[in-house]
Amino acid sequence: MTIDPQLDKLFYSLLTKDNLSGYEDPEKFKKWVPKIKAYREKLDSSVPQELKVDLPGPIEKLKADQFNSMKYLYDEKLLSPHEFEITDCAGTSIVENIASGKWTSVEVFKAFAKRAVLAHQLTNCAVEFFIDEGLARAKELDDYQIQNGKLIGPLHGLPISLKEHISLKGRIGHSGIVSLLDNIPDKDAVTATILSKLGAVFYVRTNEPHALLPLDSGSNITGFTKCPFNLLLSSGGSSSAAFSGCHGLRPSSRRISARGLVGEGGGQESVVGVLGPLSRTIKDIDLFMKSYINDGKPWLLDPWSLPIPWRDVPKPDLSKLKIAVMRDDGVCRVTPPIRRGLNEVIKKLKSAGVEIVEFVPKNGRLAYDVAVKLSNCDGNRALREAFSASGEPLPRLTKWYLNLGDGAREYTVSENRKLNAIRDNLRQEYSDFLIENGIDFFLGPAYNNVAPKEEEVYNESYTLIYNLLDFPSLVFQTGLFQDPKVDVWNEEDMKYEYRSGMEELENRGYDPSQFIGAPIALQLSGRRYCDEEVVAASEVIVNFLGVDLLKRQKD
Amino acid sequence: MTIDPQLDKLFYSLLTKDNLSGYEDPEKFKKWVPKIKAYREKLDSSVPQELKVDLPGPIEKLKADQFNSMKYLYDEKLLSPHEFEITDCAGTSIVENIASGKWTSVEVFKAFAKRAVLAHQLTNCAVEFFIDEGLARAKELDDYQIQNGKLIGPLHGLPISLKEHISLKGRIGHSGIVSLLDNIPDKDAVTATILSKLGAVFYVRTNEPHALLPLDSGSNITGFTKCPFNLLLSSGGSSSAAFSGCHGLRPSSRRISARGLVGEGGGQESVVGVLGPLSRTIKDIDLFMKSYINDGKPWLLDPWSLPIPWRDVPKPDLSKLKIAVMRDDGVCRVTPPIRRGLNEVIKKLKSAGVEIVEFVPKNGRLAYDVAVKLSNCDGNRALREAFSASGEPLPRLTKWYLNLGDGAREYTVSENRKLNAIRDNLRQEYSDFLIENGIDFFLGPAYNNVAPKEEEVYNESYTLIYNLLDFPSLVFQTGLFQDPKVDVWNEEDMKYEYRSGMEELENRGYDPSQFIGAPIALQLSGRRYCDEEVVAASEVIVNFLGVDLLKRQKD
Repeated sequence: MTIDPQLDKLFYSLLTKDNLSGYEDPEKFKKWVPKIKAYREKLDSSVPQELKVDLPGPIEKLKADQFNSMKYLYDEKLLSPHEFEITDCAGTSIVENIASGKWTSVEVFKAFAKRAVLAHQLTNCAVEFFIDEGLARAKELDDYQIQNGKLIGPLHGLPISLKEHISLKGRIGHSGIVSLLDNIPDKDAVTATILSKLGAVFYVRTNEPHALLPLDSGSNITGFTKCPFNLLLSSGGSSSAAFSGCHGLRPSSRRISARGLVGEGGGQESVVGVLGPLSRTIKDIDLFMKSYINDGKPWLLDPWSLPIPWRDVPKPDLSKLKIAVMRDDGVCRVTPPIRRGLNEVIKKLKSAGVEIVEFVPKNGRLAYDVAVKLSNCDGNRALREAFSASGEPLPRLTKWYLNLGDGAREYTVSENRKLNAIRDNLRQEYSDFLIENGIDFFLGPAYNNVAPKEEEVYNESYTLIYNLLDFPSLVFQTGLFQDPKVDVWNEEDMKYEYRSGMEELENRGYDPSQFIGAPIALQLSGRRYCDEEVVAASEVIVNFLGVDLLKRQKD
Repeated sequence: MTIDPQLDKLFYSLLTKDNLSGYEDPEKFKKWVPKIKAYREKLDSSVPQELKVDLPGPIEKLKADQFNSMKYLYDEKLLSPHEFEITDCAGTSIVENIASGKWTSVEVFKAFAKRAVLAHQLTNCAVEFFIDEGLARAKELDDYQIQNGKLIGPLHGLPISLKEHISLKGRIGHSGIVSLLDNIPDKDAVTATILSKLGAVFYVRTNEPHALLPLDSGSNITGFTKCPFNLLLSSGGSSSAAFSGCHGLRPSSRRISARGLVGEGGGQESVVGVLGPLSRTIKDIDLFMKSYINDGKPWLLDPWSLPIPWRDVPKPDLSKLKIAVMRDDGVCRVTPPIRRGLNEVIKKLKSAGVEIVEFVPKNGRLAYDVAVKLSNCDGNRALREAFSASGEPLPRLTKWYLNLGDGAREYTVSENRKLNAIRDNLRQEYSDFLIENGIDFFLGPAYNNVAPKEEEVYNESYTLIYNLLDFPSLVFQTGLFQDPKVDVWNEEDMKYEYRSGMEELENRGYDPSQFIGAPIALQLSGRRYCDEEVVAASEVIVNFLGVDLLKRQKD
């Protein structure tokens, strides 16, 4: 990691809210180093040797070269045509092909396992493989199908990777926190239970940022995950649809159970975390949500989950949609590739008859401030306990996170409630704006830049707003990629006056020559609990834009 | 108010958590006395003289006589047969009769207005009348019906009384708090807006306990409300179904909008308050919920409200129900009339084939402790600000409330979250208990006693548990009434060892000769968001028990 010394100075000057004492303890940490080593060795040894390929060079060189591993995968034909056919098939169709007998669950599983191992070799995306168990489960499913003449559920035979903090019984669950390497949950998270019951096959758990805090991905346990389109860049976190080239849904809270997540102390209700699916097709996101909710009925296992069925909504007619575009949220200016992405998508949507309204949020900065204050309103006490238990060194961005809001100052209950009340007023304001103006959705950036460099991503305002509002939001790929020749700051840009140190860090960190080929994503958001409408409209928009993440890679 | 001096001593010995300084200020309060006086005068003058009756004696004598005003109403025929016919008709049928042209909205309104004035004369239940406005609205509705040949909505012409803290534009909203006599909301609460749109007619606002805290009803502003069946007793609060002889639903949170309530600072999410309907028939509760949710769509006006439609569920077959009976919650022993009510209802339900399971909650005391700690976890700061703004004298039970939990100790955010996490575990425990044992509902007391005496009601554990769990709960009348000859402590009871000072206060305060004729209510509760099932089963049970609150009064 090399960061412009001037920007690094600015970065450290912004860390004023938590003096970071009481976290790190090198002496204490020594005890944990062997546990980290053992964890990494287990990860390495769990990767079947026969599935590995020779990389085209040392990983550090590939990083420096901004290596595009997606292109490499296809150019070098690292999978057989049959394996490509399977792994570049929408989940919806995979289940159909298993149902029709065209493919077996085992056959599907083997192709995905191979591709996952390749992905891991190139991007360091996995923290745990259990391919043997996955294979055994796939065999079970094939047997079930033969014996019963039907599928076990709507996700029968579908290999699904899980974020690491979704507890699995008997397996270490750490959320990137070293001291949790001793944590072995005694039961599966509700969401794992449901997916498994629906027929999904688990075999790999994916990396997450330290305690799921920063917007990049990685921790002291297994290091960082890289963007498959440019290995110099980060895959992003805690989920990574905007940076890694897939679509992803942030559902409204309480539609997907969050019961049984690792490291989740519980009881935080101000800005509620959610789980949601990532996929290369939007129809798979719909399949996931519909199956999970309507067949999985999470409320029977978790009273926190809402018994709101997943509704079948008609695909909207683009010429009847009214969309409010937020080009700048008042917190951080977007970089040239994101600006281009917005401009091109808006132009196309207008050509399809979409009514576009410009939206300049009058309380964007307030929303960001409230959200980060609420996120840290326990004065980082829970994090301090978790980190200091091992004394692990704090990654750069963990320090950043600990300094958001009022950092180490623990709020009283009254202070917390006052911020909650402001949050509720913001929800009302954004909701009323949509309803009173007959606007269907917000369209905007998912982040002010494309995939960031490792440990150089500071601003989460563009996604945090929807966590604060608890509005459903779908990050979708535009099919566009950063182009160092086109996506440069123009003369006007150079005169810009930064509104905050964070904005300066973010904007000045964008050197066009270092983000080559990074995917350009945007997000579509709607009213609370209108997840179905957001998914349906996203599918229509993505299809209209001609984005096909499966087809593109096959060509 | 005369309280056994020994019990009074015990009461004051239990007030150890908040020393009550910083609330009262007689000097400051002087300024507010004229405002209270003006409020009362406005109330008095808003009662049309021609609707008033002569009471059979001074109110203090009626209280001492444990006067039954319900009996008096019918014995003395204080309403005409036509007025009785209208006001003893289910809301569902009133709307039908208006639709068919049998009655006009004005005719219905006049009968209810007269009955409301009588009720107020006898029980002091109203804090504000606006009969002229109600009449004008009823006329408007009649005109609408004539012009359009149809009703304006599913509650067309139905007179509904509102609890005082439901904001009405341009009218003082105080929640029993003197300093809020200056508060004049600039818009209606969402729930008032919806009910009005559905066709309801407002004309009276009803009394509430001081800041909606205690379980009795009244404040320094307009005094206490009495139980219509025994004027010595309290009507109860903040709602009063268990004490005043009607049925009432506590819905799951976020089904009825709580946006725009007076005195609600907002941001408290640990034990969420809810609004729900009170009625003399359960089918009217169903009408209210169904119309409010499915036609009113509160989520369009308030993003806090959940878009969960009110489901039509089949009326359950009693012989297929399995009900867990909680006779004692581990916090407070019930008095003899409640015990009798439980025994008789259980006996009848068993005869109908209901499978009855005894349920002894293993964490009842923990649940109570967590709930009261969460209720006061801001160290009473919000209440201190509200009360001290006028320096008003603290009613006896306000002092009690301020001393619940840890009283004046303000929690940190971490402490709040830890309690929330315990609450979530309790929700899981109760929910799992129902699901894993195939149990449909909990049946139990709604309070450990019948209607209490003014300022002598300390324990809210039997309702608080469902606020904590956020389970829907329906308080229903058993059709039984306290009988001083039957409902006495027995020899076994006399040997009982109290588990807490609060229990001693509650139990020793029950002198059978002072609760004559108080209605005996119970409650049926179900899983979170299974409000529909709770209402449907309650209707079947109440019908099976032969309880008819309209018929009984006509006989």
